[in-house]
Amino acid sequence: MTFTPQLRIPGPTPLPEPVVRAQSRPMIDHRGPEFAALLHEVTEGAQRVFGTAGDLLVLTCSGTGGMESAVANLVSPGDVAVVALCGNFGERWVNILRGYGASVVALEAEWGQAVDPDDLREVLAAHPEASLVFLTHNETSTGVCNPLRELAAVARAADRLVVVDGVSSVSSMPIEVDAWGIDVAVSSSQKGWMAPPGIAFVSVSPRAWARREQARSPRFYLDWGQAREWGAKGMTPATPAVGVLFAVQEGIRMLEAEGLSEVYARHRRIAEATAAGLSALGFELFAAEGYRSPTVTAALPQPGVDVAVLRELLRSKYGVVIAGGQGKMSGKMIRIGHLGAVSEGDLVQVLWAIEQALEELDVAPAEGRAVRAASDVLGRHAVAAG
Amino acid sequence: MTFTPQLRIPGPTPLPEPVVRAQSRPMIDHRGPEFAALLHEVTEGAQRVFGTAGDLLVLTCSGTGGMESAVANLVSPGDVAVVALCGNFGERWVNILRGYGASVVALEAEWGQAVDPDDLREVLAAHPEASLVFLTHNETSTGVCNPLRELAAVARAADRLVVVDGVSSVSSMPIEVDAWGIDVAVSSSQKGWMAPPGIAFVSVSPRAWARREQARSPRFYLDWGQAREWGAKGMTPATPAVGVLFAVQEGIRMLEAEGLSEVYARHRRIAEATAAGLSALGFELFAAEGYRSPTVTAALPQPGVDVAVLRELLRSKYGVVIAGGQGKMSGKMIRIGHLGAVSEGDLVQVLWAIEQALEELDVAPAEGRAVRAASDVLGRHAVAAG
Repeated sequence: MTFTPQLRIPGPTPLPEPVVRAQSRPMIDHRGPEFAALLHEVTEGAQRVFGTAGDLLVLTCSGTGGMESAVANLVSPGDVAVVALCGNFGERWVNILRGYGASVVALEAEWGQAVDPDDLREVLAAHPEASLVFLTHNETSTGVCNPLRELAAVARAADRLVVVDGVSSVSSMPIEVDAWGIDVAVSSSQKGWMAPPGIAFVSVSPRAWARREQARSPRFYLDWGQAREWGAKGMTPATPAVGVLFAVQEGIRMLEAEGLSEVYARHRRIAEATAAGLSALGFELFAAEGYRSPTVTAALPQPGVDVAVLRELLRSKYGVVIAGGQGKMSGKMIRIGHLGAVSEGDLVQVLWAIEQALEELDVAPAEGRAVRAASDVLGRHAVAAG
Repeated sequence: MTFTPQLRIPGPTPLPEPVVRAQSRPMIDHRGPEFAALLHEVTEGAQRVFGTAGDLLVLTCSGTGGMESAVANLVSPGDVAVVALCGNFGERWVNILRGYGASVVALEAEWGQAVDPDDLREVLAAHPEASLVFLTHNETSTGVCNPLRELAAVARAADRLVVVDGVSSVSSMPIEVDAWGIDVAVSSSQKGWMAPPGIAFVSVSPRAWARREQARSPRFYLDWGQAREWGAKGMTPATPAVGVLFAVQEGIRMLEAEGLSEVYARHRRIAEATAAGLSALGFELFAAEGYRSPTVTAALPQPGVDVAVLRELLRSKYGVVIAGGQGKMSGKMIRIGHLGAVSEGDLVQVLWAIEQALEELDVAPAEGRAVRAASDVLGRHAVAAG
């Protein structure tokens, strides 16, 4: 029996109760003073989370819309862009760029591996005509966290514009947009921000603004210039998702009340506990060691386990909702999201349920291995913190 | 003193309590069976409201994003389009089209007037190279409701593709997309649908799909093909605004429980009462008689009344939030939104407050004229209905 489902996919993430209450506030005029105060607070909060003193735009769309805004505002047909990718969301950059008529040089790491900064350096040296580099911070489809700081440094050293998909990273792990030389980063509300989907955040550096002046792709709804111009007046060009912004405002308040460094530490230790628990159950962690994501863990089950059957059993009997594979890994892996409003106990519940389900599927007897392994990790963290 | 503000702008509109409760439901997996059921119900409900058996796409963006999707999916650079406009939102079609490299033939009626179907017939005859016609059903900036059925008939008789901005009309007044020969219509959640902003609805006819095959503008996030393909699997291509969809689902249930014909009649009689009340106070109704919108009333105050001062007094003292003018009418008019969750009593409260405010501003003594005039109209309707 379950009463409250455990939604453990890599976004949308569960909403904390104060966020639910915040989004239930009565609707307001999106051209009035209350909205201006809301937009101002959200913008400044997001700037702190991104680590930027530059422009931070709030768009009403999903993370993909935010990604497309980067292409629409920066790229003209015929431009050459390097995409350093290692999964499904890296491929999304490729698809959007090609849709806008760009020529793409793809540097593809094997799925499960991170992009190597040395490989990026070589590709950039071989392609001086490529003026832009598109990166994925946290590859949600494989559970790989790329070495963003190093990759951005390589691209900046080669004087390229650096555009980052930070959809499932920003607010859950360290990022310093200005200090790391990132020109554009994108995130969205339904990930670590603990809010519902509907809002994308986009940071834009002065270099990116300068490039935008030259870019000739059509854009209206996703136009950064309009967003900045109206933002200066406390408004958005079109009607924004006001209710989602109420939620985002509360989510950022909660992140800052907890403290960003503790938020990041919590994500890291829950990710380690998840990895330990799954390993104890015989799953093979998909992401290479050293590059495992703090927000999503991808793992391959023992041969013979039908992922669809496992997920359905978890959902229907235990109220535990986890994700499957994407793209070419569809049906082959499980992915557990542990970002945003997630506690140690939440993951203990998930791991316990998986172990029970595996027994039920005659894979292995439930002996408490997963929870014990996770507890060991969490205990070590507690000792280290104490 | 006010406790609950009267939000009477032409969107976002107030949320009924059941809608607030619906959007507070726990977040769900946007790739799971519950979401598929949600999307299915919303899509079918919206099809009934639009009056179409054709495709109805649900996009995560504002109405402007829905409008841009029509241009991005139908228009190639160099295409010629006729835009029949009479206000700010008609100009939005022009701006989006030009942004995508289209050549625009603008048929512009004076602000406050409706577009004349005979004028459209002439323009189409003079411009056989214009293969598309863009219309505004309800021009939110002027309170004019265009004769959409007649305009669409003229465009279809001339064998042009008909694209309609129905953002502030659909669900508040009669529309029959299939029967009237409309190829594409756009609406959005924060208007008559009684939900928060964040979702746009787009109906797409077979003729529009055929044209899309040829259109060469870049599109990814707003691509209709992706939306249809994923929709058939009970999903959206990118993460949708799930919470807004919970709200939309409940809003449509409420519209259908009331009955669409009664919803339309309610909007019509409240609009008439609003017009009568404002006229009694000496306002000049901006929209031409016979073309006054059921969802928004625009009116010019007596000379000497500062619109900004009046609106601020209404907001701060009476909790009544109304809109001002847009574009070239900025600062010159008031606009009262009466769509979605609006009762007769709500407008009585608004009219009473305006009369009080005018007395306070030394414009005219408050003698109950506005409420009396509105009551007379509502009384006649009650007698007619009885």
